[in-house]
Amino acid sequence: MSDLENSMLSTIKVFRRYSGDKCKLRKAELKELINNEMSQFIQKIDDSETLDRVFADLDQNGDLEIDFQEFVAMVAMVTSACYDLSDPEHNASG
Amino acid sequence: MSDLENSMLSTIKVFRRYSGDKCKLRKAELKELINNEMSQFIQKIDDSETLDRVFADLDQNGDLEIDFQEFVAMVAMVTSACYDLSDPEHNASG
Repeated sequence: MSDLENSMLSTIKVFRRYSGDKCKLRKAELKELINNEMSQFIQKIDDSETLDRVFADLDQNGDLEIDFQEFVAMVAMVTSACYDLSDPEHNASG
Repeated sequence: MSDLENSMLSTIKVFRRYSGDKCKLRKAELKELINNEMSQFIQKIDDSETLDRVFADLDQNGDLEIDFQEFVAMVAMVTSACYDLSDPEHNASG
């Protein structure tokens, strides 16, 4: 399997680890996942106001839970931000 | 760094490897990337008609090149499809 394929499976695994059998993340689980698994790229979430805002942004269908579709959209957004930051001149010349 | 963070960096690296200095994928590069790096999850692209269709679907801004934003949206879409296929009953109960 390629690195990219392994990365995709790894994204699925981490979601499963935090969503458990219900296959959706509640607020507390989303906070735990972000703080434990994304702290190099996203500032840790300490207060409920920030958590509420992040959660509302991600919860596209408004069911008060984050499904995999909503989660992987966040991962894509953060990856894009990392890409833009990783080499601004390089990217600008593209 | 967590597995998820490494996965995100890995996604950036593979895009850079195929897009080179221009930071965008042309049709031939997209085909090469998909066939080399995603063949476990996506059927290999053999004919130009399929390539044209895939390319047009991904090229959201119509500039005839695939930028990182468009690429990572494809990766998220394929990852979601893998997630749905990986455990249909499990997901349906969610």
